[in-house]
Amino acid sequence: MKFRPLHDRVVVKRLESDTKTKGGIIIPDTAKEKPQEGEIIAVGPGARDESGKIVALDVKAGDRILFGKWSGTEVKIEGQDFLIMKESDIMGIIEG
Amino acid sequence: MKFRPLHDRVVVKRLESDTKTKGGIIIPDTAKEKPQEGEIIAVGPGARDESGKIVALDVKAGDRILFGKWSGTEVKIEGQDFLIMKESDIMGIIEG
Amino acid sequence: MKFRPLHDRVVVKRLESDTKTKGGIIIPDTAKEKPQEGEIIAVGPGARDESGKIVALDVKAGDRILFGKWSGTEVKIEGQDFLIMKESDIMGIIEG
Amino acid sequence: MKFRPLHDRVVVKRLESDTKTKGGIIIPDTAKEKPQEGEIIAVGPGARDESGKIVALDVKAGDRILFGKWSGTEVKIEGQDFLIMKESDIMGIIEG
Amino acid sequence: MKFRPLHDRVVVKRLESDTKTKGGIIIPDTAKEKPQEGEIIAVGPGARDESGKIVALDVKAGDRILFGKWSGTEVKIEGQDFLIMKESDIMGIIEG
Amino acid sequence: MKFRPLHDRVVVKRLESDTKTKGGIIIPDTAKEKPQEGEIIAVGPGARDESGKIVALDVKAGDRILFGKWSGTEVKIEGQDFLIMKESDIMGIIEG
Amino acid sequence: MKFRPLHDRVVVKRLESDTKTKGGIIIPDTAKEKPQEGEIIAVGPGARDESGKIVALDVKAGDRILFGKWSGTEVKIEGQDFLIMKESDIMGIIEG
Repeated sequence: MKFRPLHDRVVVKRLESDTKTKGGIIIPDTAKEKPQEGEIIAVGPGARDESGKIVALDVKAGDRILFGKWSGTEVKIEGQDFLIMKESDIMGIIEG
Repeated sequence: MKFRPLHDRVVVKRLESDTKTKGGIIIPDTAKEKPQEGEIIAVGPGARDESGKIVALDVKAGDRILFGKWSGTEVKIEGQDFLIMKESDIMGIIEG
Repeated sequence: MKFRPLHDRVVVKRLESDTKTKGGIIIPDTAKEKPQEGEIIAVGPGARDESGKIVALDVKAGDRILFGKWSGTEVKIEGQDFLIMKESDIMGIIEG
Repeated sequence: MKFRPLHDRVVVKRLESDTKTKGGIIIPDTAKEKPQEGEIIAVGPGARDESGKIVALDVKAGDRILFGKWSGTEVKIEGQDFLIMKESDIMGIIEG
Repeated sequence: MKFRPLHDRVVVKRLESDTKTKGGIIIPDTAKEKPQEGEIIAVGPGARDESGKIVALDVKAGDRILFGKWSGTEVKIEGQDFLIMKESDIMGIIEG
Repeated sequence: MKFRPLHDRVVVKRLESDTKTKGGIIIPDTAKEKPQEGEIIAVGPGARDESGKIVALDVKAGDRILFGKWSGTEVKIEGQDFLIMKESDIMGIIEG
Repeated sequence: MKFRPLHDRVVVKRLESDTKTKGGIIIPDTAKEKPQEGEIIAVGPGARDESGKIVALDVKAGDRILFGKWSGTEVKIEGQDFLIMKESDIMGIIEG
């Protein structure tokens, strides 16, 4: 990929609704803040802790994740839509 | 379970009202912020302290807990409703 | 007791007005934030300091305390009303 | 005294206006936040610093102090009115 | 360049829309906070961490970056428009 | 002086306008927050840093200072008007 | 100069518009927060870091700087207008 996120940011591709159904994750319409499913495309090197040491992220490219609906900033890279967000916006990883 | 929470997040299954009565916990209707009863389904590895070390959570899968009524985000995983919240939203553990 | 509070939380039983009079503590009606008298029923293990070490609470079960009127969350455990609050909501201990 | 304050809290007895005049401290009516004179009745053991060590207070029982007019919470202990406040609400000590 | 930014600030030249298209980055009009593409012209020495040590920036002059639309302050140096912003306003680096 | 400030507080005597003119400092009427000239009468022992060590103040009794117009709390001690403020409210020292 | 700033404050002389043009810096009228050009007249010794050690400033008397339009407090010292601001209000140094 041509974009390298800084610090603790990640690039995420939002997954479509039918993909969600296959994965077994359905987001109820009534939830006040609906999480979304996505795939991580690229990760930054990590943020620095208080002593200045870089702490690597806990997610990696290829992980399928849930994130808050309003998280991140939309960008279009080489014709495709992506989201740039911080690792702290990610709720967890969908496995299997 | 197919979902692995990140950091200090936990996945919680809300327990129904009649379950609450058996457990001996009744939430008064007049409380300004009514706690809810739930069961922990999955826990994250813990958040990092200031020196970058991961601090494991004090709760584990299977714990029955009280949490604030407005805590967490609703998700549906494999057809079941769950809440994803941070350990700090949990008030305590119901034992016995 | 069947409920074990997490971190620096405590379970408090609010003491009735006539108990207060015996104890010698009367809360004036005109105070802007009237403290309340209660008895500590259960205490959490303590919060972690910055280095990740657990710092035990300064109060223990059985202590009679003053706390801010709006502190804590009301719960009913085995038919009795309690409050769950943080140790920092407690102003001090009534002795003797 | 029957009340032991927690952490960095102190119990203060507000001194009457005529006492103030003897002490030489007169609070102008036009000040936007008028400090008040009081006597410290009891002090807590001190708050913990970041390393978890208790830092003893700089005031002691018997000190005559100035404090902000709106500082503290009013309580009545054994029929007398007191204020419970934090040491940081105290501006200084009146000597001599 | 005649301007040397302080601390963790950088000087950025905003890239025009047609340059963006060549680089393959298109910003959708509907994004709530549209990132912009730019080139870093000069970087500060870095901010100090808690122990007072200077932490060098992760970007350098010549890097092509994405940054938030409202980031930075506009200045004109020797007749050219630039933006002065903090490294934390930069989302990532466009490569290749 | 009969008043000993706590922590990083200082007692300041506001200097009159004609004193200012002699000292060469004139405060323009149009400034949004006009600094004032004063003399330090008494200083506290200093605030504690994060490790609990007291850091002595950089000002001393007798220093002539500039401070923000709205800084501090007015008190009258032995018939004279003073201000109690924190060292951080002081902009600098007038010399010579 | 007769004024010695405290901590991380600096004394700045605002440079007139025609001086700006010579220096090659023109501030566009449409910028939302227009930076201003000035010369540093005096600097404080620096602020203390968390361990209580003084960190010297990165600017010195004589530096020509850009600073935010609304930064600082206006004072008149010996008949001349100056600004007192913190080093963090300075964006960078104009060289050559």
